Amino acid sequence: MQIAILSFFHYFTPMFKKRESVFEIEEGKFLSPKFDNNGLIPVTTTDSSSGELLMHGFMNSEALKKTIETKEAHYWSRSREKIWHKGKISGFFQNVKEIRVDDDQDALWLSVDIGDGASCHVGYKSCFYRSIPLGKIKNTKELEIKFEENKKIFDPKKIYKDEPNPTKL
Amino acid sequence: MQIAILSFFHYFTPMFKKRESVFEIEEGKFLSPKFDNNGLIPVTTTDSSSGELLMHGFMNSEALKKTIETKEAHYWSRSREKIWHKGKISGFFQNVKEIRVDDDQDALWLSVDIGDGASCHVGYKSCFYRSIPLGKIKNTKELEIKFEENKKIFDPKKIYKDEPNPTKL
Repeated sequence: MQIAILSFFHYFTPMFKKRESVFEIEEGKFLSPKFDNNGLIPVTTTDSSSGELLMHGFMNSEALKKTIETKEAHYWSRSREKIWHKGKISGFFQNVKEIRVDDDQDALWLSVDIGDGASCHVGYKSCFYRSIPLGKIKNTKELEIKFEENKKIFDPKKIYKDEPNPTKL
Repeated sequence: MQIAILSFFHYFTPMFKKRESVFEIEEGKFLSPKFDNNGLIPVTTTDSSSGELLMHGFMNSEALKKTIETKEAHYWSRSREKIWHKGKISGFFQNVKEIRVDDDQDALWLSVDIGDGASCHVGYKSCFYRSIPLGKIKNTKELEIKFEENKKIFDPKKIYKDEPNPTKL
């Protein structure tokens, strides 16, 4: 019943324009985001001062609404299956400077201020701290990745204590 | 039968290390990407010279392998349901300068050189050419988005001719 009420709410909320025309979605001036079969939209988050890529996550419609209204990033945590107010445990909130939507409105870009903080639960500033080698792959070997960042901004054991690790196998 | 052979191939190919330990995934030196239930991993692509966010897409394992080996971006097109060699129709290939993987290895970042080209099928350089307003949402109104780029790099009608538009409702 709760699901039915929520669906009813989302269907009739005028915040998002119904997706009725490809031209309107691509060239129009109304937000008509496309959430996938799980109700999620992918989000890429960059540092507003350096432009550096910080993290990749997902939002549901409620997380998007909270992010727009509070100007603090909220995501949908797929591992915890709940809204995730980024920084609530660590203190590393993301102050949203800009949100953009892409051509077919199925992806979002957040530009955020994190001050001297970090965005990665492992302790690095960016989640993208390792690179993949380019060129011909030897089929007999696993691909070795290279650390591009070595300095952790914080010690996750001190910050997260007994919180379960969101990384899943 | 073809599916069975492909699965067999992917299961035993040593290119990706099996995900066996959270520590190895986060702090280890081997590539162990996590593909979702549809066999896809999200990819964010930025301009290697300006750092600008260009597009967001998805790869399957074959697209990732082709990208690594050819150093040209290949994605999985969800609307066309096939491997998509970016630039094959438009000529706007993406020359891959770096690929990074995130902490839990379920997202990729491509840094690419597109010269004076564009990455958006609508004609703009970046797919993220519109911003979403921040602040309190009026529940009686649809959200109006704002164009941040106005100059198209190319005319999609001339470049794509009769190709079907990948944007779906």
